[in-house]
Formats: sequence, C-alpha cells, structure tokens
Amino acid sequence: MRTLYHYPLSPFSRKVRVFLKEKSLDFELVTENFWERRREFLAMNPAAQVPVLIENDESIFADSTAICEYLEETYPEHKLIGNSIRERADVRRISSWFNNKFYYEVTKHIVDEKVFKYLRKQGAPDSNIVRVGQQNMLYHLDFIGFQVERLGWLAAEKLTLADITAASHLSVLDYLGDVPWEHNIPTKEWYMLVKSRPSFRSLLNDRIPGFAPPPYYAALDF
Amino acid sequence: MRTLYHYPLSPFSRKVRVFLKEKSLDFELVTENFWERRREFLAMNPAAQVPVLIENDESIFADSTAICEYLEETYPEHKLIGNSIRERADVRRISSWFNNKFYYEVTKHIVDEKVFKYLRKQGAPDSNIVRVGQQNMLYHLDFIGFQVERLGWLAAEKLTLADITAASHLSVLDYLGDVPWEHNIPTKEWYMLVKSRPSFRSLLNDRIPGFAPPPYYAALDF
Repeated sequence: MRTLYHYPLSPFSRKVRVFLKEKSLDFELVTENFWERRREFLAMNPAAQVPVLIENDESIFADSTAICEYLEETYPEHKLIGNSIRERADVRRISSWFNNKFYYEVTKHIVDEKVFKYLRKQGAPDSNIVRVGQQNMLYHLDFIGFQVERLGWLAAEKLTLADITAASHLSVLDYLGDVPWEHNIPTKEWYMLVKSRPSFRSLLNDRIPGFAPPPYYAALDF
Repeated sequence: MRTLYHYPLSPFSRKVRVFLKEKSLDFELVTENFWERRREFLAMNPAAQVPVLIENDESIFADSTAICEYLEETYPEHKLIGNSIRERADVRRISSWFNNKFYYEVTKHIVDEKVFKYLRKQGAPDSNIVRVGQQNMLYHLDFIGFQVERLGWLAAEKLTLADITAASHLSVLDYLGDVPWEHNIPTKEWYMLVKSRPSFRSLLNDRIPGFAPPPYYAALDF
C-alpha cells in the first residue's frame, strides 16, 4: 500500500495529501514526529522533513514539490500542474511563492512559535514573532484575492497545485485561529470553495492533542 | 533577444544563467537592483525577485525553479533535470534542498548581512548571524561530499540542475570568501569540476563595486 509519512500541521504534508486525493490515488497515512529525527526516518529522507512518500513498489520520494511533480508525471490523467507550458510556469511560480515566501514570512513564524516550540519543549511562543507573521499575512491574502478575482483560481481557470499549496498553508494557520478572513472577501470565498472539496475533508478532521481548533475550522460556511 | 533580469550575487540568478548556458541558449543579461522595487520590474514579477526571464516572443517567466522547468520542457535536447522518473525525483529533491534549506540556513544569513544590508544602507553586518550561517554550512558541505563520493555528481551520474543549484549558492559565498573548502575534500573537488565548465565562466568574471572577491575566486585550481 502506498504510504505517506506526514505530520498533521505540516503544510507541505497537507499539500501532498490533497494532491493525492485530487488524483484519486489511495494511500495510508503514518504520522511522523519528524523533529525527533528517528534513525529509520532519516534514512528515508536525510533532510528530516515530512512528507515522505513510499510508493507501492517501495520506492521512496521526498520533498513535497518533487513528490507532486513525480505524481503528475506518473498519473497524468487529471492534471494539477497546468495544461500548457504557460499554465505550468504560472502554477510552479505561484506554488513556489507559497512554499517559500509565504512559508518563511508567515507560516514558519506562527507555527514554529505556537506549535513546534511546544512540541519540542522550547518554552512559550514569542508573541512578537507571531505578530510579524500575522502582519506579513495580510499582503499575501490580498495577492490571493487579486489572482482569484482575475482567474477564478490562483494560477489558472481551475484548481491547480498553486491553490492546493496556498490552501494547505492557510488551513494550518486557520487551525490555530490565525487567519483574518474578513480582510479579503474574494480570498475567503476562494478558500470556502477549496475547503468544500472532498480532497480537503480529511484535513478538517485532524486534531492535535493540546491544540483545539476554533469552532469554524471545519465549517464549510464560516 | 532572450533577456534575463538578474543580480550578480543572487544564487537563483546564477542558477538560471548556468542552466541557460548548459542548454546552449543565448541570452542578454540585465542587472536589476530588485530591492529597489522598480515599478516596471514589479509588473513583471510581483514577488520582486530575480531572476526574471523574457523569452524571444516576450513571454515572461519568473521564479528560478519554474524557469528551469520551463526551459527543460521547451528545450529538452540536453537534459538537466534527469533522464528517468527516479532521476528527476532526485534532482528535484536535492535542488529543493539547496533552494530552501541551504538558502535559509546558510546563504541568506551570510549574503543578507554582508551584501544586502550594505546595498540597502541598513548598517554593518551582524557577525553573530554570519557565524550561524558559516556554522550551518559545514553539514551541507558534508552532504555534498557524501553524495558525490557515491555518484560522481550530486543527484545522478552526470551534472544536473542539483549541481548547478548547489554550486550557484557556493559560488556566491565563495565570492565573499566564506567557504571553508578544506572542510570536505570531495566537495572541493566536485566544485573544481563545476567551476571549470564553460557555463560557469561568466559567474567568475562578475564583480560588485565595494566587494572584491578573494584571489582564488576565479582560479580553477584553488
């Protein structure tokens, strides 16, 4: 059975989970506390990061972008990285924006402080760092709104890896109650659409001991 | 004429320059002081980052990974992202390692402090931050050494985007005199090989006013 080593509040894991579901590919989830640097896990991925995908033939794939490109190439029926050269360039550019800019300017500040410091027993969150992440988030929400008002979706006229990537980050922040949805209504409406897809369902059922999501986290109308 | 907006000490720009040369694609270089956020440049790339590629038909491509994937797809004769599904997954995983982990753990600490603070007139470098980058670099040098001792190159048995990516980062740090080459001899030998390629030549001729590279920077035997 295809297996995905993941962590529930890892946006990169969430992205691959949704990508697999959108491709209608079956898989088993195994939770990996990657910060514990388990020896067998490091042997699979020396970067010590989730997600790691083990395919049915036992071949190992690491790095969420490399995994999605691999899946797109191997299971091309329902395309998620664009239908043309132009679309693929835009999907990859905007996915990269969220994997890098958004992650380092927003997600990492908030999730490292609120979640991983707790899990690694490194003390209380630094509210200044959290605030920087929250402040940075606003222009990203506006960027999403600008794109979806033009195209309907983030990088093309249908859902692609770019939407999946952005929504995976936001869903983690939403679990922590940190997304000011009223800041940009087109962005909120786009997220409602993504959230209501069956591929997104299992993310909304995730629960981490010690962190209760806000009541609207799993609500499709919020 | 194909045009690449770049900045000489941007590792992401260097990667695309070498990638284009390895593909034998002609292009003109235009230096962009991206931190000045020039309006026309933001219109090309709202992320305000170099490189940006303008193709002969005037279409615009941004994000260095998206640009390389685009070039590989459009000019597939001499493959640089691997010859098989397995190789492509490895090339992408290791390229991503350097684009993300290495950049945020090493390059950014050192180059932001030493170069961009100066160019943005933000004061003197914080030597503690530089030191963190230098310290983090060591295990990455060992990672490269481990890979090249096994394969000859970083991700496959020939030069790929993974080597180009890693060497682009190291070449910027080497310009600043910050790579302790004697730390890992296989890594040094691999870098000598990359550095001696014609595709790398123009990087070694770059000079930034205010920053003189060490005498061995352009030497093929160092």
